[in-house]
Amino acid sequence: MRMYDLIEKKRDGKALTDEEIRQLVNGYVREEVPDYQMAAFLMAVYFRGMTDRETAVMTDCVAHSGEIADLSEIPGIKVDKHSTGGVGDKTTLIVVPMVAACGGIVAKMSGRGLGHTGGTIDKLESIPGYRTQLSRKEFFSVVRRVGASVIGQSGNLAPADKKLYALRDVTATVDSIPLIAVSIMGKKLAGGSDRILLDVKMGSGAFMKTADEAVKLARKMVAIGEHAGRRTAALITDMDVPLGNFIGNALEVREAVHTLQNRGAGDLTKVCIALAAEMLFLSEKGSRKECRALAERSITDGSALQCLKEMVHAQGGRAEALEDPDGLPNCRLRIEVKAERDGYISHMDAQGIGASSMILGAGREKKEDSIDYGAGIELRKKTGDRVCAGDVLAVLYTSEERRFADAKVRFLEAVRISEEKPAAKPLILARVDSKGVKWYQ
Amino acid sequence: MRMYDLIEKKRDGKALTDEEIRQLVNGYVREEVPDYQMAAFLMAVYFRGMTDRETAVMTDCVAHSGEIADLSEIPGIKVDKHSTGGVGDKTTLIVVPMVAACGGIVAKMSGRGLGHTGGTIDKLESIPGYRTQLSRKEFFSVVRRVGASVIGQSGNLAPADKKLYALRDVTATVDSIPLIAVSIMGKKLAGGSDRILLDVKMGSGAFMKTADEAVKLARKMVAIGEHAGRRTAALITDMDVPLGNFIGNALEVREAVHTLQNRGAGDLTKVCIALAAEMLFLSEKGSRKECRALAERSITDGSALQCLKEMVHAQGGRAEALEDPDGLPNCRLRIEVKAERDGYISHMDAQGIGASSMILGAGREKKEDSIDYGAGIELRKKTGDRVCAGDVLAVLYTSEERRFADAKVRFLEAVRISEEKPAAKPLILARVDSKGVKWYQ
Repeated sequence: MRMYDLIEKKRDGKALTDEEIRQLVNGYVREEVPDYQMAAFLMAVYFRGMTDRETAVMTDCVAHSGEIADLSEIPGIKVDKHSTGGVGDKTTLIVVPMVAACGGIVAKMSGRGLGHTGGTIDKLESIPGYRTQLSRKEFFSVVRRVGASVIGQSGNLAPADKKLYALRDVTATVDSIPLIAVSIMGKKLAGGSDRILLDVKMGSGAFMKTADEAVKLARKMVAIGEHAGRRTAALITDMDVPLGNFIGNALEVREAVHTLQNRGAGDLTKVCIALAAEMLFLSEKGSRKECRALAERSITDGSALQCLKEMVHAQGGRAEALEDPDGLPNCRLRIEVKAERDGYISHMDAQGIGASSMILGAGREKKEDSIDYGAGIELRKKTGDRVCAGDVLAVLYTSEERRFADAKVRFLEAVRISEEKPAAKPLILARVDSKGVKWYQ
Repeated sequence: MRMYDLIEKKRDGKALTDEEIRQLVNGYVREEVPDYQMAAFLMAVYFRGMTDRETAVMTDCVAHSGEIADLSEIPGIKVDKHSTGGVGDKTTLIVVPMVAACGGIVAKMSGRGLGHTGGTIDKLESIPGYRTQLSRKEFFSVVRRVGASVIGQSGNLAPADKKLYALRDVTATVDSIPLIAVSIMGKKLAGGSDRILLDVKMGSGAFMKTADEAVKLARKMVAIGEHAGRRTAALITDMDVPLGNFIGNALEVREAVHTLQNRGAGDLTKVCIALAAEMLFLSEKGSRKECRALAERSITDGSALQCLKEMVHAQGGRAEALEDPDGLPNCRLRIEVKAERDGYISHMDAQGIGASSMILGAGREKKEDSIDYGAGIELRKKTGDRVCAGDVLAVLYTSEERRFADAKVRFLEAVRISEEKPAAKPLILARVDSKGVKWYQ
């Protein structure tokens, strides 16, 4: 089968056979299929989509393009979690120790980030001494002892995804639901866990702007996971507004600790309990109700916080730093951003606030950029809050004075103040698993 | 403007500005835009189309990517003709001398062919001595003396089209009406004529399978021509059945001569008169009715044949060869293909018959293949004819015995014989110009 015919087939809306998908992806990795043919194929996929079968086979090829983590040496059900990403999304730092504290097992590989803040790995590296590169032996040993470990992705994890993503990134074929699903699930399958929970964010600060799109992506990913024999579920959660009250790296680690001390922001705590409960349910720790109770208790009894400290310690980090106000990087400079009028905050555009945070130094614009771990934003008011002119809306932190002006403008552009109190929106919109979609209202 | 944004814009169904189109095409020619980005763009065009303005500007870039023929030294209105190609389409050989015989001026560059037979240039080269590569001075001199000259395209004619076509050819983006229009009209504009007549073929043996598609393509090309200030019109003609009774190179030259001797096939003669009349009308030689009469007379009075002989002679060819049965390449081997049953020929698939002709050696499968000038097919029966089992349907010619078996199978597959006489179909379906579409019924 010539590559031309595969492009034409997809262009004409037909499904490729398993063998054709394998030829395509493997040929591309071996550089037998040139970039220009793959680019035409990807654009055809953008318009025509892919069947569940096609995405499942393509994901399998992507996962097997590099090393597949073999976690079988670690006894028990290993559960992974992936968030499609949003502004102020520090849930991994909170949920992973919650699950481990309840007897779940999490052997997780995470990535660095581009955009508003760093990724989970960057956030963890703001903890003095924390090592994100462990040998396989060390990684397994931490998981066995603590129940959880979070490390950086190995260079050989799903290399086909890296190659495909680099091409999508320059050919305007990133925003394709089946291709996003293949990319995420390719890495998850290579990560080796038995069960997978997906946190699909939707709203202004997320990749998926509507609940329908988010559900579509979730369904695709669940289908891929199930096809590969890994039980997979997804929650659709709101990312119209940043999650929690802090955006930044060290700022988010500190907020994670607050949350585990049961004094975190309500929205963040609620989402974390829901995610941890689903992970425990996937790990067969009881009924959904029981798992929820377990998750809640891991916060109130301090066991999840204890677990986080143990993980940090086991990976070389200063666990004491977590509860010490000066233990994590702090920024010397801060300014307050004040409300310019009275009213209700009717919208806080998460994307705009993320952009402000990146300007402050909390995120990278390019891969090579360095991160200012202490930089970021503390939100004092959020959507729905009543404010008076002059009230502090947020505090901006950075190490470089010159960054404030732009960051403030960008922040204020993202906040809308109106006369009327906006209607409250649900935080967790739906749950997707192999049985279908359950909408929460 | 980054290339990424242009791909995204087209992907999202928006029109690019003139400046953006220019950056895109010129950047691609200068190799600043990589193949993979152009491939993604072309696939987005496949799905989203292009506005008349976009195609006009893109065509202008393509035309200006190389040398633009300056025909201003030749006095009078120069008229060009282009056929989108079909099986047995030898109209250029007939129409060009007809127009010149009536005072029109044709300074035409033609291409070689891939597929069932060679292109016009290959056909002309089957005439002993005929030179298709003339210097500019020689070319102009032939046009001035004879009124017409047909030569091969110079290497520097619209190089952007060559580069784009090569990419489309391997990325399944050939069948896009705006891209086809840009490709054809880019070369026509570079050809330098003042007026352009397009013969858009439609049916099983043509690129456009339906009249609607053919009209769409014609409208796009007319819009491009008019935007460039070249009056342009198009006829939509049938290519469900091969045109005339001969398919091959020397065979078609011989049929062209027969037609100019007023003893050609009815369908071919009719189409040629219509095309020549339109070209004369574009050349302002009178009303449409007067132009038609002029065209008809150029056949009956022998002036068009005389003109062809003069052109052949002026370009170094043996004009006497045209009317000498042994003057053009003949094939030693021939077999007759006979009807296997009684009935009416209800369909002759032009594409299948073209494929049979290629097998016999009349066409090239790859650029490097050589052509057997004498090879091809003589049709003794055509759609609508009554046949009895054993009647000769066609005679196949080749120089290599081994080619017959496959060619015969392919030929017979293309011919359908039924009980009922099929309804007659119109030969010329519509005319498209800047005022719109006129359907003939």
